[in-house]
Amino acid sequence: DNFMTELYTQISLNTGILRLKEWVAIKSDSGDHTKWGEVETMLNMAAERIKKMGGKVELADAGTHQLPSGETVLLPPVILAEFAKDPKKATLCIYGHVDVQPAKMEDGWATDPFNLTEIKGNLYGRGATDNKGPVLAWLHAVESYQATKKEIPVNIKLIIEGLEEVGSYGLFKLIKKRRDSFFADVDFIVISDNVWATTTPALTYGTRGSSYFFVEIEGPKLDLHSGVYGGSIQEPMADLIALLGSLLDHTGKIQVVGVSDDVTPLTEDERKLYDNISFDLEEMKNVVGVKHFLQDTKEEVLMARWRYPSLSIHGVEGAFSDPGSKTIIPRKVTGKFSIRQVPNMDPPDVERKVKEHLEQVFSTLNSPNRLKVTATVGAKPWVANLQDSQYVAGQKAVKDVFGVEPEFIREGSTIPIAQTFQEETGKSVMMLPISGHDDGEHSQNEKISRYNYIEGTKLFAAYFYELSLLH
Amino acid sequence: DNFMTELYTQISLNTGILRLKEWVAIKSDSGDHTKWGEVETMLNMAAERIKKMGGKVELADAGTHQLPSGETVLLPPVILAEFAKDPKKATLCIYGHVDVQPAKMEDGWATDPFNLTEIKGNLYGRGATDNKGPVLAWLHAVESYQATKKEIPVNIKLIIEGLEEVGSYGLFKLIKKRRDSFFADVDFIVISDNVWATTTPALTYGTRGSSYFFVEIEGPKLDLHSGVYGGSIQEPMADLIALLGSLLDHTGKIQVVGVSDDVTPLTEDERKLYDNISFDLEEMKNVVGVKHFLQDTKEEVLMARWRYPSLSIHGVEGAFSDPGSKTIIPRKVTGKFSIRQVPNMDPPDVERKVKEHLEQVFSTLNSPNRLKVTATVGAKPWVANLQDSQYVAGQKAVKDVFGVEPEFIREGSTIPIAQTFQEETGKSVMMLPISGHDDGEHSQNEKISRYNYIEGTKLFAAYFYELSLLH
Repeated sequence: DNFMTELYTQISLNTGILRLKEWVAIKSDSGDHTKWGEVETMLNMAAERIKKMGGKVELADAGTHQLPSGETVLLPPVILAEFAKDPKKATLCIYGHVDVQPAKMEDGWATDPFNLTEIKGNLYGRGATDNKGPVLAWLHAVESYQATKKEIPVNIKLIIEGLEEVGSYGLFKLIKKRRDSFFADVDFIVISDNVWATTTPALTYGTRGSSYFFVEIEGPKLDLHSGVYGGSIQEPMADLIALLGSLLDHTGKIQVVGVSDDVTPLTEDERKLYDNISFDLEEMKNVVGVKHFLQDTKEEVLMARWRYPSLSIHGVEGAFSDPGSKTIIPRKVTGKFSIRQVPNMDPPDVERKVKEHLEQVFSTLNSPNRLKVTATVGAKPWVANLQDSQYVAGQKAVKDVFGVEPEFIREGSTIPIAQTFQEETGKSVMMLPISGHDDGEHSQNEKISRYNYIEGTKLFAAYFYELSLLH
Repeated sequence: DNFMTELYTQISLNTGILRLKEWVAIKSDSGDHTKWGEVETMLNMAAERIKKMGGKVELADAGTHQLPSGETVLLPPVILAEFAKDPKKATLCIYGHVDVQPAKMEDGWATDPFNLTEIKGNLYGRGATDNKGPVLAWLHAVESYQATKKEIPVNIKLIIEGLEEVGSYGLFKLIKKRRDSFFADVDFIVISDNVWATTTPALTYGTRGSSYFFVEIEGPKLDLHSGVYGGSIQEPMADLIALLGSLLDHTGKIQVVGVSDDVTPLTEDERKLYDNISFDLEEMKNVVGVKHFLQDTKEEVLMARWRYPSLSIHGVEGAFSDPGSKTIIPRKVTGKFSIRQVPNMDPPDVERKVKEHLEQVFSTLNSPNRLKVTATVGAKPWVANLQDSQYVAGQKAVKDVFGVEPEFIREGSTIPIAQTFQEETGKSVMMLPISGHDDGEHSQNEKISRYNYIEGTKLFAAYFYELSLLH
């Protein structure tokens, strides 16, 4: 409505885009620790912006991290910021990150990835949508209230990191440490670091978790020639193929007994959420390049990706993997697969069942080889309660700005930050994306559209307002 | 007997070992075509030796070869030699090669691989046993007759190449071309380019063939994230695992219908050959490092390696094969396996049955992916007739020199030269090894024992004699 438009126009469009251009120009790729200086430059720039807006900023020590080489490095700090607090208002903590994925012209960018370039309404640049654009949109939403001399309807806190793309080193420890200080008075945590599922605005209320499994079969003491020994040896690769082949049937159903027992049953209310999603199955077949999915309907496909577990076999280490032919019997092979978990599956329970399953199948092979199954600590699945004020406010804000109902969506991949915030702080967490489904985060030619950037800023401003009404 | 010893002592031991030292010093590694100059040096050295012995030598043009890079290179020549011919005598053609596998101190050699070094009765050096030692032993066997002014009891021809270790480029064409000239008057072809199975001398009467299969499954148009898409995609890797898993049961039995139909039935005479082989099953378990083989008895294990077909899965190309974890759904994966074939299996027939089997299994998967099965032209299996004069003569010669019955053995791996000679020339072919089962051909610390080198030379001389008696 007019109120929002009025608020927003106080930040001129050009200023908003100019600031994003300045931020994108900083090569804050966190992938290479020797370049974390750029990440710190970027964090300082963000801190300065918040200070100019009257925010109080702490550059919190995130500790150290041990690299795979064994070297221990100091981590860039994490921004913990807050604006003036009114005890009568609800307190919203906004999470964002200002580091980016690597980007090089040679990878196939049409424009310089570190020079924000507008083409036909799209703003191309590394970090434009993941996550510098959304972070600036949050700041601009705050600024729009300030510029119109309107009270910000909620107390605002910010937590902004610079290592999201490499796994948020140090962040989870910091959250734990500040649970009873910085997070003590926080009512709501909001994250805008994912994308819509379609062209319709969305609220994200769940992510799947993941456990990664290594199935090692060790046999002879050396690689053998298949001509000399083939037929007399129970080959580790044959054992492994039998084990991997026991995990799934051809419909994608996981064959590990009991593994899906704890999947939350689908309720009628939840099922209805899928009806409204404007996901086009035919278009998606073309995008992915498959003749058909494992499921027939839009709803089934989305549920398979978002709310049901899945198992993917990623590959084999130790076997022959180069082009060409080699007649080797590999002495030790390691199969790798992962299971995407959903509420209320429990990673340790899943890992135990998978190990038991593999050991049981292995015992039927009468093999002289040795089996070892290991699993990496799994990311837990996350699901939010749609009755929380945040979701009600988010839904209203989408209606205010876009005039449509939001799609209630999940992410199939892990976004551990949501689950971590919920678990470590006990607060309500919502993911409120403003990025387009075709923004190409992590890809060449990453962009955010001018439309999403500006309407997204309005959405955030409206969200502050709607949240304050409910509190 | 005395006759042999007398013959042999005419070539002093020291001369024989000195010549082997000179030959080993030539780095005639054929693996790198830019170093084929050394191979030619070695061929010239061998040619000079034969000429000095009164042989007539042709350095036959072997044509050209196209490298994987597309470059076409001239091949080193092949030695075609003969000694004075007596039409009343049988003509024996000896095959050998003077190129070697690569060798570097850094690979773990205890001595300089190109400086023949005697330690405790073993002569260590690259090519000592594969195949420079045996080639010299043949020449010394001829020379022993010359030195004692005894008539060589058979006409001798020689074919010596310099590219055996890389696949005998050009050789098969040359054999075909000279079928009606060089090979026209040849009665027997003998090859000494393999090893005994145990410490007992052996005659080798068969090799398995091989077909190599590539099973490609192509799915989505790009690699997918298993978090985002897992559960909705019929993954190429899952299809591939199902196909590979259908090939074998856990006893090693090939599950492709009809593939073993043409295996020659075991006769009682053949079965008896296995009784005499002094193969120690327990020792072999220790060497290989397995708790048990797929078979329980010595005879069954040897038959599984030599006279029954086998299938080995070598690996997967296109899937994740590095250390660590990666949550990828690979878009295209290629499984690789090979089948070792035995008489009377026919490679094209086997390939057709394997393709039909894979297509049948794939059809049950209801997969949207594309299957493509290709096979490389298979090496045919080879088996000789033990009633041939060569084998009778070989058996007698072993008895003459070693005082024991030879073991009649096969090779599980392909030695295409035997089958090629038999097929292209129609002549009787025998493999008469003098190398020890622990000589480490292709390995670090390759050696031939002084015993095998010298007694092997006597064996060859005795073989000429016994063959002449039978003709």
